[in-house]
Amino acid sequence: MDSHTIAVVGGTGPQGKGLALHFARAGHKVVIGSRSAGRAEEAAAEIRARVGSAVDVLGLDNKGAVEAADAVLIVVPWDGHEELVAALAPVLAGKLVISCVNPLGFDKRGAYGLDVEDGSAAEQTQRLVPDAVVVGAFHHLSAVSLWEAEGPLGHEDVLVVGDDRDAKEKVAALAATITGRPGIDGGVLRLARQLEPLTAVLININRRYKTRSGVSVSGIPA
Amino acid sequence: MDSHTIAVVGGTGPQGKGLALHFARAGHKVVIGSRSAGRAEEAAAEIRARVGSAVDVLGLDNKGAVEAADAVLIVVPWDGHEELVAALAPVLAGKLVISCVNPLGFDKRGAYGLDVEDGSAAEQTQRLVPDAVVVGAFHHLSAVSLWEAEGPLGHEDVLVVGDDRDAKEKVAALAATITGRPGIDGGVLRLARQLEPLTAVLININRRYKTRSGVSVSGIPA
Repeated sequence: MDSHTIAVVGGTGPQGKGLALHFARAGHKVVIGSRSAGRAEEAAAEIRARVGSAVDVLGLDNKGAVEAADAVLIVVPWDGHEELVAALAPVLAGKLVISCVNPLGFDKRGAYGLDVEDGSAAEQTQRLVPDAVVVGAFHHLSAVSLWEAEGPLGHEDVLVVGDDRDAKEKVAALAATITGRPGIDGGVLRLARQLEPLTAVLININRRYKTRSGVSVSGIPA
Repeated sequence: MDSHTIAVVGGTGPQGKGLALHFARAGHKVVIGSRSAGRAEEAAAEIRARVGSAVDVLGLDNKGAVEAADAVLIVVPWDGHEELVAALAPVLAGKLVISCVNPLGFDKRGAYGLDVEDGSAAEQTQRLVPDAVVVGAFHHLSAVSLWEAEGPLGHEDVLVVGDDRDAKEKVAALAATITGRPGIDGGVLRLARQLEPLTAVLININRRYKTRSGVSVSGIPA
């Protein structure tokens, strides 16, 4: 991906902040979005403190962040997702929207994927914002690993799904700023319903092995 | 897994035959099962021709194969799965049953996971055979890679899900005969609904990159 302005809606949460850190370090202009512009600016300040003030990171409310950007990551909890995306739909229209949302449930037997009427969070976003180009990606990276890493997460892959080949290529290139290699095209957008709940398996693995697991795909030509 | 007698129901198909090859090479007694005992014996002969006649592989009809075994792999197409498992339920009862079935659909937009009323093929098997100990595993290995490999598929992991910890450990040990390292515990049996359709993503990747992809999980302590 050439240098872009990337909004991270939900960028005050650990996953969003970790992604924002890597994008900023790679030279992208990053706008953290939150319901509260103040909390967004706090997260931006944390990233600047971490990476150095030369990086271009600021915080705005979600609407302002989306308006400022040409690519928008949605990194919010599933609870409240539909309302949030619906409210932002007018400003999301026409943009590249990258859904990183994992609709998961938790009970005493562990994490599991929730039934989603649209199939997946990414497909829900596409339904709510038909004029956006929606891509699903960045579902499986550990928030803690993202925040702690001084360089690429070289043992992990980003799987990218979407109906627009150009948009997937942009996101695959953006993924390389995090893993050191391009994201992998996993198929059309409906496959997001496979990627999102796979995170439940990783969470179960993390608990079972007391680790931070990640996914990689073997057999991809360099 | 200590040396066991393993039935491979559907062992004449490429996936089942590839798994049977590795189990036989590792010293397990393997019984290929098929609707036709003759075709099962042909597949067993292929494996003997490949690995050497010292291996203990024979072919029987599915019912005979299950009766001869203490662990049973189900490696059949989703189409007809329910009828086949229901028919075998009396002989599957009380055994360790390892479901490797992927309920997938294909259309011009690629492979995708089918909606399964029970959640997954593995959960369907558990419903049909409540007295069996059902584990889901071996969903993601390429049939071609299995058959061609002279040794372990060292870049891939086997994810194992189930409600019985001991059974999962047996299957994890069995997985080591194929990948060179134990299978990874991904949670309870309901997570099979995440593992099975992930195969659709791998198939899409194979087509897109003209490769045979596999999954591995990073961050697991050795």
